[in-house]
Amino acid sequence: MRVLILGGDGYLGWPTAMHFASCGHEVLAVDNYLRRTIALQTRSEALMTNPDLHTRADLFEAHTGFRIQVQIGDCSDFLFMEKVVSQFVPETIVHYAEQPSAPYSMIDFPEARLTLNNNLNTTFNTIWAVLKHVPQCHIVKLGTMGEYGTPNIDIEEGWIQIKHNGREEKFLYPRQAGSLYHTTKILDTDLLWFYVRTHGLRVTDLMQGPVYGISTAQADLDERLMPNFHYDDIFGTVVNRFLVQAVAGIPLTVYGRGGQVRGYLNLNDTLQCVALAVDKPAACGEMRILNQFTELFSVNELAERVQTVGNAMGLNVQIRAIANPRKEKEEHYYNPVFSGLLQLGLEPHFLTDDVLAAMLSQVMRFRDRIETSRILPRVSWNSTGNLVAEATLHGSIHAENGVGLPPDGQPAIAAKL
Amino acid sequence: MRVLILGGDGYLGWPTAMHFASCGHEVLAVDNYLRRTIALQTRSEALMTNPDLHTRADLFEAHTGFRIQVQIGDCSDFLFMEKVVSQFVPETIVHYAEQPSAPYSMIDFPEARLTLNNNLNTTFNTIWAVLKHVPQCHIVKLGTMGEYGTPNIDIEEGWIQIKHNGREEKFLYPRQAGSLYHTTKILDTDLLWFYVRTHGLRVTDLMQGPVYGISTAQADLDERLMPNFHYDDIFGTVVNRFLVQAVAGIPLTVYGRGGQVRGYLNLNDTLQCVALAVDKPAACGEMRILNQFTELFSVNELAERVQTVGNAMGLNVQIRAIANPRKEKEEHYYNPVFSGLLQLGLEPHFLTDDVLAAMLSQVMRFRDRIETSRILPRVSWNSTGNLVAEATLHGSIHAENGVGLPPDGQPAIAAKL
Repeated sequence: MRVLILGGDGYLGWPTAMHFASCGHEVLAVDNYLRRTIALQTRSEALMTNPDLHTRADLFEAHTGFRIQVQIGDCSDFLFMEKVVSQFVPETIVHYAEQPSAPYSMIDFPEARLTLNNNLNTTFNTIWAVLKHVPQCHIVKLGTMGEYGTPNIDIEEGWIQIKHNGREEKFLYPRQAGSLYHTTKILDTDLLWFYVRTHGLRVTDLMQGPVYGISTAQADLDERLMPNFHYDDIFGTVVNRFLVQAVAGIPLTVYGRGGQVRGYLNLNDTLQCVALAVDKPAACGEMRILNQFTELFSVNELAERVQTVGNAMGLNVQIRAIANPRKEKEEHYYNPVFSGLLQLGLEPHFLTDDVLAAMLSQVMRFRDRIETSRILPRVSWNSTGNLVAEATLHGSIHAENGVGLPPDGQPAIAAKL
Repeated sequence: MRVLILGGDGYLGWPTAMHFASCGHEVLAVDNYLRRTIALQTRSEALMTNPDLHTRADLFEAHTGFRIQVQIGDCSDFLFMEKVVSQFVPETIVHYAEQPSAPYSMIDFPEARLTLNNNLNTTFNTIWAVLKHVPQCHIVKLGTMGEYGTPNIDIEEGWIQIKHNGREEKFLYPRQAGSLYHTTKILDTDLLWFYVRTHGLRVTDLMQGPVYGISTAQADLDERLMPNFHYDDIFGTVVNRFLVQAVAGIPLTVYGRGGQVRGYLNLNDTLQCVALAVDKPAACGEMRILNQFTELFSVNELAERVQTVGNAMGLNVQIRAIANPRKEKEEHYYNPVFSGLLQLGLEPHFLTDDVLAAMLSQVMRFRDRIETSRILPRVSWNSTGNLVAEATLHGSIHAENGVGLPPDGQPAIAAKL
């Protein structure tokens, strides 16, 4: 099968490319290095140095004999996207090509506009390139559980049957996200659903929770094949950040009361979920929405589990609550359905103590590369009451040397408004 | 009060500018003539010739003594938008500045992309210009009843309380629109609601039904002050199209079975609704959503009423059902709530026989200007089964001379895919 991977340089995109290539699929990975550019600009580079995409594809081929094709370009540019799709003629497109950082999207207008236009236009171009050139192609789109927010009722799998005044109708489950980044994923869903029902697109929208891990069958072949592992406040997901804080000997920073519950999954289960969706595609005119996580944890639970395992490994792991830079409920009802991917055959890998210990051991090999100054939150959602008028992201990072909270316990940088 | 009107050259924007100026408000009308440009490109010009915005403002001042300030520029360009907002310092922004045609948004990729990016970025720039320069400013955004679509349950006023598995939560009413244009209005609502709850914006989102009419207290002062009255398939709303067909002696064209029910309102009630929303603004952090229409009609009912009144005036009005160029339910449940604007004090003007007769009389004065070739649908939603591969909008219009349906009863132009 010809599989086009948009965002093929990413934390998930690159392991996905290797996974599909290893299964014998013809894989084309496309990226414009937007995440690397933003990481450089915001001093948020990954823990390990990742070779460029062409080099990684060469290394992967040397190890496995499987070729991953690479094209560098901007999927939000329709000329590029149309050329890629019309020439490669994919049967499946796995679409990861979005600005993926919630804090980045909340810095200021330029970052917000980049997030909005990059994400919406990439999805829009994907839709239209498929309609024009490969109308039977299955689009597998990475959404996020964050689209749902934290409502006070059970979170269904994409859709909800509403009974109201004695009548019934099935709707897209109402969405309400916690950042502009997450909101762009809602807009993606709106757009995909419109073109599914008017033009018969076939789409799977995967509502994914935060992912953790470094290791996959292919990444373990060579350190240079590892995914870009971020632990910073901009791109780092919470488990990966806690692992690095534990190894670096600085406290695990819990935002606010730490009762925020989310559905998490192992990087290997992302690969499994995407492969299951690809192998059993949506029908034409079907918008299949699947919730993609394997376990629920509160932030406090995660911190305590990392602490327990880290201490058993001789690390002295502390936990410290800090002022929450985000606007979110810190204690809330959370009961999302998770059955569609299990029915497709997913066999979950859970976050056991052994898994945590193995990840801590991997991070320890790179202990010397940890830059602790990039872990604490540098972006605040609370831009009106908590304004640091002179601070800009770049300026403040350059001025910042030490670790730890500013004296008032507030984030060092607020969105400039 | 300083009132900034975005899209001040439009069918609603210009009458709104005159209305607020006549009340003594300081009014700045902004437009980039996008609608005029598209009308020219698609041979969809309005029935009457409308002077440019500066000329109309001069004429209006000569008649009334009230000044309307004018600036020509693109609200989807943040540099322009920020300059306008920071210099004028509005207390209210009335935001009409969107590509408003559903059929135009369904032609092909370039038209769809223009609609998406123009509408989203104009709303996004409005949000950010307000956040940065006038955070207390009240944004009155024109949405559309079309955001809701035609669900099988009652349509509430923007929000719905959902009971599910024994728990409850209030959500944005789930939206599902019938064109890309209408879908961009859903995305606008998503964006506004996000910034309302994270940054405390004050927003009124008016879910408006199709508007009819030419006459307002100010427009009646001088023919050159009339709003741009469209009767074509691209910009014309259904009542206005029927009036022109009745006067031109060609059949009123009902799309499909004609059971499509919508909530309609008189142009004067649009002015009244917007004025009520402005006079009683939303609070900071409030997203107030109001359904804006006064009466429900099916398309068949509208056609029959125009026929009855037209025949009584000596017109020989015929009705003809044609193949529906849109994808929509032609018979459906439709029960939208409409109470918020009545509670604010709206006194509706209904579509009486006298109102219809007065509109027909006005149109009859311009009978010689009617170009009947631009009334029949030239854009089809059904781009996969009903594809006219060689046709382009411009090409086909130029090749088309006569009036009437093509031999197979299908629309002459389908979206090119």
